Amino acid sequence: MRVVVFGSGSFGTAMASVVARNAREVVIVTRREDVARGINDARANPSHLSAFELAANVTATTDADEALRGADAIVHAIPMQGTEEFLIGVRDAVRASGALFVNTSKGLRSDTLELMHEVLERVLGREHPCAFFGGPTFATQLMDGTPSGGVMAAKDLALAKRAAALFSGPKMRVYPSTDVVGVEIGGALKNVIAILAGGLEGMGLGVNAQTLLVTRGCREMTRLGVAMGAKEHTMAGLSGIGDLMLTCLGDASRNKAVGIAFGRGKKIQDILNERAQSLQGVAEGVATAPAAERLAEKLGVSAPMMSTCAQCLRGELDAKGALEQCMSLPIKEDAPLEERKSLSEKARPFASHVVAALAGALTATVMGAGRRRRS
Amino acid sequence: MRVVVFGSGSFGTAMASVVARNAREVVIVTRREDVARGINDARANPSHLSAFELAANVTATTDADEALRGADAIVHAIPMQGTEEFLIGVRDAVRASGALFVNTSKGLRSDTLELMHEVLERVLGREHPCAFFGGPTFATQLMDGTPSGGVMAAKDLALAKRAAALFSGPKMRVYPSTDVVGVEIGGALKNVIAILAGGLEGMGLGVNAQTLLVTRGCREMTRLGVAMGAKEHTMAGLSGIGDLMLTCLGDASRNKAVGIAFGRGKKIQDILNERAQSLQGVAEGVATAPAAERLAEKLGVSAPMMSTCAQCLRGELDAKGALEQCMSLPIKEDAPLEERKSLSEKARPFASHVVAALAGALTATVMGAGRRRRS
Repeated sequence: MRVVVFGSGSFGTAMASVVARNAREVVIVTRREDVARGINDARANPSHLSAFELAANVTATTDADEALRGADAIVHAIPMQGTEEFLIGVRDAVRASGALFVNTSKGLRSDTLELMHEVLERVLGREHPCAFFGGPTFATQLMDGTPSGGVMAAKDLALAKRAAALFSGPKMRVYPSTDVVGVEIGGALKNVIAILAGGLEGMGLGVNAQTLLVTRGCREMTRLGVAMGAKEHTMAGLSGIGDLMLTCLGDASRNKAVGIAFGRGKKIQDILNERAQSLQGVAEGVATAPAAERLAEKLGVSAPMMSTCAQCLRGELDAKGALEQCMSLPIKEDAPLEERKSLSEKARPFASHVVAALAGALTATVMGAGRRRRS
Repeated sequence: MRVVVFGSGSFGTAMASVVARNAREVVIVTRREDVARGINDARANPSHLSAFELAANVTATTDADEALRGADAIVHAIPMQGTEEFLIGVRDAVRASGALFVNTSKGLRSDTLELMHEVLERVLGREHPCAFFGGPTFATQLMDGTPSGGVMAAKDLALAKRAAALFSGPKMRVYPSTDVVGVEIGGALKNVIAILAGGLEGMGLGVNAQTLLVTRGCREMTRLGVAMGAKEHTMAGLSGIGDLMLTCLGDASRNKAVGIAFGRGKKIQDILNERAQSLQGVAEGVATAPAAERLAEKLGVSAPMMSTCAQCLRGELDAKGALEQCMSLPIKEDAPLEERKSLSEKARPFASHVVAALAGALTATVMGAGRRRRS
């Protein structure tokens, strides 16, 4: 197995190291000559996770075309918002290689509201084999061999299993799935909830409030996901609430940092300006919140936490106001979305009752027949 | 509203304070004269949460029969394993009051493998109105007004809503549900996973491993719950993964303390002996783990984490062995239990394909008809 990794950031480096446990050869494609040299000569990425020695079968290059020659698989770890531009440049080599494309980047395109599988379909074509990884995996802990896990989704299960096998091993459990949208939406929306989690922390509120936010935040992500075709089950797994839990309750991320400062009473515009000036890096949730708000509107789904976060980022609400707004939302029955969804269109109740009744009758008949056949 | 609270431990005291925000009068029933006196005279529970002043409408008594006269609701907060004995003594007064019985105690009876709703049905009869609360709610944070939430389940939704209204307010969101088993099973099994979470912490493993354990541990609890009639949805909510997250990732509980010592390499028998001698209190998961193992066997459901914990408690595995065992379990497709369940019988695949195909055709037809009707 020859595996090419697109991207030499923390996650790309960590993914290269995970895959190197199973592959013969792993080649990291980077824009930066110094990073390629560091990896090839000093066995470490000089700009990310530099404390970790890389395995002997990991090398790096700035030449994507050369790297892709004879590649069996590609692991994509370039941030969502820069993906399309990068991929257009290497599209022909990727297609020619026929290599399985495993995406590990998470996000919702803030301009087009697309998920990665939509971008890939557009750029690589519908036929290129793609799989999508999601899960609670901090890069440093992947490097140091902390037991970790995730979900690998692809349109067909055999493909998902093949991609999962690339990552799996005694330190890493990767569950195959056919729910691409479910795996993607969790990673795409989690950063918005992480800003709110930072807000609670900044206000000095404890774990009762944090777990309420994470669990109900996941319910909201689930509503959006299900409206896009995801399965509720996937949202309750490693790529959904697992990743959300890590992001909200684990070490401080950039998103949480924005929320913490806001929860302590700082004006949002000052927080964002300071981050921009000090080059602390973009908090993805800042762009995702308004995009998620628009997505919810487009789908006709209620997403009050996404809206609340977007309102905070527009300066329309302070932290106390945001909390009060969330705590006074109407409370609905806690019932499966599929049940509630089937009641959401006027025409549906009739249809679903008829189908359920007929399906029940048919099941009974066919199951009865099955039993008779066996006897 | 006159509400009687059974139990003057931390959770009883906290629940009394939550309900006091909505009720005219709250009476705590306790065995201890000194606790009753402290609450009535000094406005604080001298043995639990003594730093918190209680609201003026909270009183206490040792006389359950007197307390129950004219009661509209009962909030039960006596530990599971002592519940039956206590309830038999007050059964007639409870029945005579007709008061809505709201259970907040969590657990699986280690001898009979019953959940609370089964015990209550047996002791109070099938007709007595009962509701079941679950959720991520540390008692101290309920007292200090940290925003919190939970789920309230009852056989019928109107009853669940009535019980939820008792607890709900600007600081507390309680979602009604009809999934009694689902709400109960989360609270009953979480302490087993909490022991394992302590084990990971004791071994110095980070949040990738913790979130893997919590998320996949919830999947295992879900398999057990669904086999008992719970909905998968409920296990992904506040009373399921929400409470599990709090217990595993929040401040150290007795269950986590057992696991932490074990993860650091101490022999399990020494840990349990020391706890018994120093009166540090029983870690509920110690009794629940073997009970859960037996329950899984009885239900024919795979529950390798429950078994692993039980094996550790029997001295059959050390922490490293337990981790290796869990990390080398076979990996199955991450798909909804309902789908997988329907494939578990040999006759089903044929039946379900036929039904799905027919249902699809019917949906299309009926929905088409619906659309035509509307146009």
